[in-house]
Amino acid sequence: MWGGRFAEGPSAIMREINASIPFDKALWREDIAGSRAHVAMLAKQGIVSEADAKAIDEGLHQIAAEYERDGVPVDWDLEDIHMTVESRLTEIVGPVAGRLHTARSRNDQVATDFRIWARSAMRRAVAGIDAVLSALIERADEHAASIMPGFTHLQTAQPVTLGHHLLAYFEMLARDRSRFADALARMDECPLGSAALAGTGFDLDRKMTAQALGFARPTRNSLDAVSDRDFALDYLMAASQCSLHLSRLAEEFIIWASQPFGFVKLPDALSTGSSIMPQKRNPDAAELVRGHAGRIIGCVTSLMVTMKGLPLAYSKDMQDDKPPVFEAASLLDLSLAAMAGMVADSGFDTARMRKAAEAGHATATDLADWLVRQADIPFREAHHITGAAVKLADEKGVALDGLSIGDLKGIDERIDERVFEALSVDASVAARSSYGGTAPVRVREQVEAARKRLEEF
Amino acid sequence: MWGGRFAEGPSAIMREINASIPFDKALWREDIAGSRAHVAMLAKQGIVSEADAKAIDEGLHQIAAEYERDGVPVDWDLEDIHMTVESRLTEIVGPVAGRLHTARSRNDQVATDFRIWARSAMRRAVAGIDAVLSALIERADEHAASIMPGFTHLQTAQPVTLGHHLLAYFEMLARDRSRFADALARMDECPLGSAALAGTGFDLDRKMTAQALGFARPTRNSLDAVSDRDFALDYLMAASQCSLHLSRLAEEFIIWASQPFGFVKLPDALSTGSSIMPQKRNPDAAELVRGHAGRIIGCVTSLMVTMKGLPLAYSKDMQDDKPPVFEAASLLDLSLAAMAGMVADSGFDTARMRKAAEAGHATATDLADWLVRQADIPFREAHHITGAAVKLADEKGVALDGLSIGDLKGIDERIDERVFEALSVDASVAARSSYGGTAPVRVREQVEAARKRLEEF
Amino acid sequence: MWGGRFAEGPSAIMREINASIPFDKALWREDIAGSRAHVAMLAKQGIVSEADAKAIDEGLHQIAAEYERDGVPVDWDLEDIHMTVESRLTEIVGPVAGRLHTARSRNDQVATDFRIWARSAMRRAVAGIDAVLSALIERADEHAASIMPGFTHLQTAQPVTLGHHLLAYFEMLARDRSRFADALARMDECPLGSAALAGTGFDLDRKMTAQALGFARPTRNSLDAVSDRDFALDYLMAASQCSLHLSRLAEEFIIWASQPFGFVKLPDALSTGSSIMPQKRNPDAAELVRGHAGRIIGCVTSLMVTMKGLPLAYSKDMQDDKPPVFEAASLLDLSLAAMAGMVADSGFDTARMRKAAEAGHATATDLADWLVRQADIPFREAHHITGAAVKLADEKGVALDGLSIGDLKGIDERIDERVFEALSVDASVAARSSYGGTAPVRVREQVEAARKRLEEF
Amino acid sequence: MWGGRFAEGPSAIMREINASIPFDKALWREDIAGSRAHVAMLAKQGIVSEADAKAIDEGLHQIAAEYERDGVPVDWDLEDIHMTVESRLTEIVGPVAGRLHTARSRNDQVATDFRIWARSAMRRAVAGIDAVLSALIERADEHAASIMPGFTHLQTAQPVTLGHHLLAYFEMLARDRSRFADALARMDECPLGSAALAGTGFDLDRKMTAQALGFARPTRNSLDAVSDRDFALDYLMAASQCSLHLSRLAEEFIIWASQPFGFVKLPDALSTGSSIMPQKRNPDAAELVRGHAGRIIGCVTSLMVTMKGLPLAYSKDMQDDKPPVFEAASLLDLSLAAMAGMVADSGFDTARMRKAAEAGHATATDLADWLVRQADIPFREAHHITGAAVKLADEKGVALDGLSIGDLKGIDERIDERVFEALSVDASVAARSSYGGTAPVRVREQVEAARKRLEEF
Repeated sequence: MWGGRFAEGPSAIMREINASIPFDKALWREDIAGSRAHVAMLAKQGIVSEADAKAIDEGLHQIAAEYERDGVPVDWDLEDIHMTVESRLTEIVGPVAGRLHTARSRNDQVATDFRIWARSAMRRAVAGIDAVLSALIERADEHAASIMPGFTHLQTAQPVTLGHHLLAYFEMLARDRSRFADALARMDECPLGSAALAGTGFDLDRKMTAQALGFARPTRNSLDAVSDRDFALDYLMAASQCSLHLSRLAEEFIIWASQPFGFVKLPDALSTGSSIMPQKRNPDAAELVRGHAGRIIGCVTSLMVTMKGLPLAYSKDMQDDKPPVFEAASLLDLSLAAMAGMVADSGFDTARMRKAAEAGHATATDLADWLVRQADIPFREAHHITGAAVKLADEKGVALDGLSIGDLKGIDERIDERVFEALSVDASVAARSSYGGTAPVRVREQVEAARKRLEEF
Repeated sequence: MWGGRFAEGPSAIMREINASIPFDKALWREDIAGSRAHVAMLAKQGIVSEADAKAIDEGLHQIAAEYERDGVPVDWDLEDIHMTVESRLTEIVGPVAGRLHTARSRNDQVATDFRIWARSAMRRAVAGIDAVLSALIERADEHAASIMPGFTHLQTAQPVTLGHHLLAYFEMLARDRSRFADALARMDECPLGSAALAGTGFDLDRKMTAQALGFARPTRNSLDAVSDRDFALDYLMAASQCSLHLSRLAEEFIIWASQPFGFVKLPDALSTGSSIMPQKRNPDAAELVRGHAGRIIGCVTSLMVTMKGLPLAYSKDMQDDKPPVFEAASLLDLSLAAMAGMVADSGFDTARMRKAAEAGHATATDLADWLVRQADIPFREAHHITGAAVKLADEKGVALDGLSIGDLKGIDERIDERVFEALSVDASVAARSSYGGTAPVRVREQVEAARKRLEEF
Repeated sequence: MWGGRFAEGPSAIMREINASIPFDKALWREDIAGSRAHVAMLAKQGIVSEADAKAIDEGLHQIAAEYERDGVPVDWDLEDIHMTVESRLTEIVGPVAGRLHTARSRNDQVATDFRIWARSAMRRAVAGIDAVLSALIERADEHAASIMPGFTHLQTAQPVTLGHHLLAYFEMLARDRSRFADALARMDECPLGSAALAGTGFDLDRKMTAQALGFARPTRNSLDAVSDRDFALDYLMAASQCSLHLSRLAEEFIIWASQPFGFVKLPDALSTGSSIMPQKRNPDAAELVRGHAGRIIGCVTSLMVTMKGLPLAYSKDMQDDKPPVFEAASLLDLSLAAMAGMVADSGFDTARMRKAAEAGHATATDLADWLVRQADIPFREAHHITGAAVKLADEKGVALDGLSIGDLKGIDERIDERVFEALSVDASVAARSSYGGTAPVRVREQVEAARKRLEEF
Repeated sequence: MWGGRFAEGPSAIMREINASIPFDKALWREDIAGSRAHVAMLAKQGIVSEADAKAIDEGLHQIAAEYERDGVPVDWDLEDIHMTVESRLTEIVGPVAGRLHTARSRNDQVATDFRIWARSAMRRAVAGIDAVLSALIERADEHAASIMPGFTHLQTAQPVTLGHHLLAYFEMLARDRSRFADALARMDECPLGSAALAGTGFDLDRKMTAQALGFARPTRNSLDAVSDRDFALDYLMAASQCSLHLSRLAEEFIIWASQPFGFVKLPDALSTGSSIMPQKRNPDAAELVRGHAGRIIGCVTSLMVTMKGLPLAYSKDMQDDKPPVFEAASLLDLSLAAMAGMVADSGFDTARMRKAAEAGHATATDLADWLVRQADIPFREAHHITGAAVKLADEKGVALDGLSIGDLKGIDERIDERVFEALSVDASVAARSSYGGTAPVRVREQVEAARKRLEEF
């Protein structure tokens, strides 16, 4: 009936489905740190003797050195990182090792370990975002006045500056940063000492362990403490939004690097060739960043579904909390690094960008706005007049500013020579100097503001 | 080829796929508020005359009165709420209505409308959460010492108090509340004045419109302002986590209301009968709350996928931002209200809960802890001794405290009569007085703390 | 505590959360058809009298006429479409209406109604797919020899024909069609007569009702019959894959319609203008099709999450099965219709496509293949030689076939004049005549094969 | 700027983000099989010499032996399994290895490898399902007449038999089986020979390679062949539905194993103890199966999102197709095996089940049905009379059949002594003998039918 790798029957299945050691070995540093904090507290409170605590602490110290050097040994029968460490500790210090688990359960232990790990992942995300933000500022400064077509619906809409475009991503990623910061603040509580689910009768000093592990305070409710994976979901949700932003930037690099656009030459280090087409120069890194958004969204979906409808307190389903977080963190770290490199090292073909901005009647809105201002026409009417001018330019096969003043007066006699000043892409961009607008003067202000915000984050 | 409802061909398809008025009419209040703020600013800046602004404002005021009274007329050819309002305004005030759209685009207009709507939804969520929190505090206070079995893996684990159990949900929902608060702070910027994508050449006062619409400041980058739907995702993500917490509580009510458990009698108002089985009393509201978590997770998935890989600036895909947010908000509002009612009005059968806690050897850990404390045995060894006692009790068909002292001494002679003090569920619960533990004294402290936190939120 | 629209308290909440009539009124035709089939069978089996059955049937017939004319009245206190119909039936025929529910429960009733509805939706999807397939065939036939750049990584890779490209979507959508066909076959069982969950003691003829409602057979297990929503998930999964394929085609139309590409002019009927930029011609329909993939994926996620972990038999959570299916079906129907129109009516700028294919060294693989064939060089070595040629062409700023024979011999002396025959895009495309390849001769064969498959589906 | 593990800068990032060898090494068997089929065909067609083909084939054979013995060496610079194999082949046979890639690209190569892998996974799923189906049949046969409460809304509804309940899962899993069978039929096409995207100019015999690799035919369109991941989505979608069914069964085992229910004793081999509570016996395997549904749903979400909106042909995003499929397959295989064991080896406490069925007025519908049949009362009226009887029984604290005939006549005088025959759980179950109903006679018929279906699948 069982066949294949489960020929042994249910016990073989159980060993494989139950063991978390293949992935939770990643928590070994956190597990040992948590145990050291716990035993120090037990000693201070007189729950274990100083001598026993010292032996245990030294044993843990030795195990850390071993794992650092040789990696964590994977023995499926020891199930998880907690039993793996404790088993080794027993080998080293003998039965006194059994005192370490006083007033503790695997439930609060894993909640503590994983929370510390997630905290590090959040901090890494913040650092990774800062690298992208920094690159965006530098390139935006460089290109504060480089003109490109601004698109809506991927149709040429109005000229903008490349600096302005890049700073849009500064805003997105700055919001992502704030999400990780919010999550760090929200999770700043230590579950250790909640025991299996109900707290314990031993006289613990939970503030001491919380502080030792870098948390602001202990958690307030033991049932919640062992059942809560909000911090993991907070990580995954912030990661998802961040990856969505990166996917948008990646999509732009991919489109911009296509031959018909030709706006950008991606860094050699972040492109690849083809196994069959020698001329290819593929934006692999950008595509992988875009693709990784799918996987990160898969990860947050996974944990949401797993947690749905679980009664209190700990259920084994929650062992499935770690793989999606580990996977998402690895993908996000890489995506942030790749996009930082892409932003920093890409070569922008500003001549080609400008030329594209000059096609497509991108300054039609400027004609409409000019009519509103100079001729005091309601915008809707000006919009209609401009539509007629665009139509005429298309028929004549010229750009909007290639129409003669006669052509324009033929459409509406209120138009005069001054209009041509409004119809160049430079004039168009310079004009859009409202707060948040694309005018180089505004972009430069925002570059300075961004620099300051980044320093003050 | 087209058949059915699209017999007219592509233009009929386009009218149907393109029109957002069937759902974005929900934004009419926000749209009119945004327009009134915009025109007031245009007047103050001298971009439209005071007279025109007054006419427009009065027209908008009249439209608001009409919609309040009669609802929003749905004309698919007017596509969306913006054109619906503007078209009606033109009927009322004539061509001067065309001046309202000066220095504005539907892109910043819809971004503003939807952001205001999302802000209201977040505030409603906070109020809905507060109602649940308040109910949880009252019932936790009432049941600070009511004993029930604490479960892990849905197996009887250790006795806890019902008050402690309810306060676990206080912690979860308090975190949900903080997520909405964080999202409100993060979205406190007004996109109005970003125009189509690039800002505008008109001399706007964006701080004035931001303030008029209740925002702390205008957005900093016009491309981002019209492309950003983070605020909607923030709403959906906070709503998803909140609905997950509610689904857990709902699951518990459903299990507790089953005949074999019999822990709770759900409020009549939140239960239903059966069309075929007259004896039934179904926990429909709890099941719908649990089910709604699925739909809310569907909503956040929807918007994440829609936003993935969209290049700047506005793309029409983003029109699909509203249905999932509207749907999730409606489901979350109802779910919070239903759970507030369920918590407030359910009848708990504390006698039956206590009886269940007394079965299942729930105080086995207390025996192990007693051995650690009284006989200074390492916890792991104490755990093994207790396992033997549990086995013997099972063989004899008695509860753990139904074993004789002879039985217990037969297992380990270090056990003495005092152990029986530790083995009652009352003693067990009272003993777990570590910070965050289930002891009634701790629960009462946390009730007071929760009351204070709720006041200070 | 309740405030707002729930000021009445829990009973108001319950009415709103519990009522499905706002959406399940869409099932009125199916509900009446199911009831008519049921009562005819009850009469034939002698469970109700012929006279009663006739009265009930006529009453149901009258209700159908009323609903057809006036729509379904929404009374929240009647909860759902089943009670709405039954209540009206009681008004029309009196207490005899109560005999209709003999040997039936709302559980099997709704399972039957919804299954019939889903069957129609699947059939509509098949018809919608057929329209797209038909359009693809016609345009592929027209453009069997129109040359365009084939892309990988959105980089120009090798020349292909537009016909070949369009037929790739024929394959995708033909698979989608088969998924709906599989789902139709799998769901071809009628749940009616399963009653609440356990079957019934009345002597039913379930084959008779199954046949009357167009099903191959009755379901085999009553518990499964009322708990099963696989048919809804099958619909949503097939719809998700189909919408993913449409999203890919939509993405291509959007990119192709951009000014730098300029490959396609979308149909006027499926494009829109801008409220602020008079020159714009936006691919709104394509963007909405792309966006709708997000919402359809949200729908399938919703129902998967809702169904997860539900114990048997019917749970109220399952009431949340209908909104995602109704929403997805509406979006899919529209998406298919829009893409059929887009494929049928778009204007392809084949001159511009060809020009793009001639840029970008798209025939580099042809050079490598020529070397393998003519000079018997291993492909990997040929690949390296070609890379050198591409590099030289780039340095000289010419296309690959703009290099002189001297240039080429300088790279590898085994190259001779005949190579130039291989380097034109026409030669390249004509050469790729392996089965499934892009050569016009192959494309025309596949067009014929596709026509035949479509006829035989 | 780069810090940490990316200190080298973009090239280090690229190596890590780009390499698929850490996971696609799982494809080594498929890759070698594909290459051997390809080279045999190249030789037969005269594209490579017999001698070269022989050398290549022997080299590949040797590599297979090495990998079988030592595992696949992971060298990140070789990127993927294809380059890893080719690089080793070059070491073994020299430059002739370069002939293997003639008329092939990594694009069709990976599409072929992955499709073969997915086919095996589908076949494994079918075998895993068959094991569960087989166990369900055996236990259903054993318990065809064991009475338990049937639940709706987790409320006791009507008595059913355990055999009937288990066969409901037979139906679900039989549908899952058919989904994998449909997917196998749909994917029965071989992409090899599609080359990079456009086919090739070499004179291939694609039917030969298709047949050698066990496919019915070659794919029809080369662009589709390298861009298609429908087969992977088909796997994930079938796996998702299957895991949802397993999650429902797992939920039931978990609830049934709780102390208040006590319906089932799970197999020792599939339960675990607690690190702190010696009396615990946790349904870990069932919880993990339930949890895994979350992860599998995460996997299908991941790939759907990744594929959304990708233009043709191959994009690097598609490299993210493998991790979710590999993960889901591993989880599904384990889940099926665990549930087969759980069904086969669990001990059902039928006495306790029966007792639960006798509580809760589960036969109330039988009273109503009796009234319809014996007294010819419309069902709705009978339902009301029964409601009164249930209320009276509750007030008297007795079961429905504990009411005296006087009590019942006091409610409705049409009731007579014969009613008591209908009110036992045995009578209730025996009565429900409609097709698909819970009567033991029907269950036994379905057991036989299921046995036959399983044989004939």
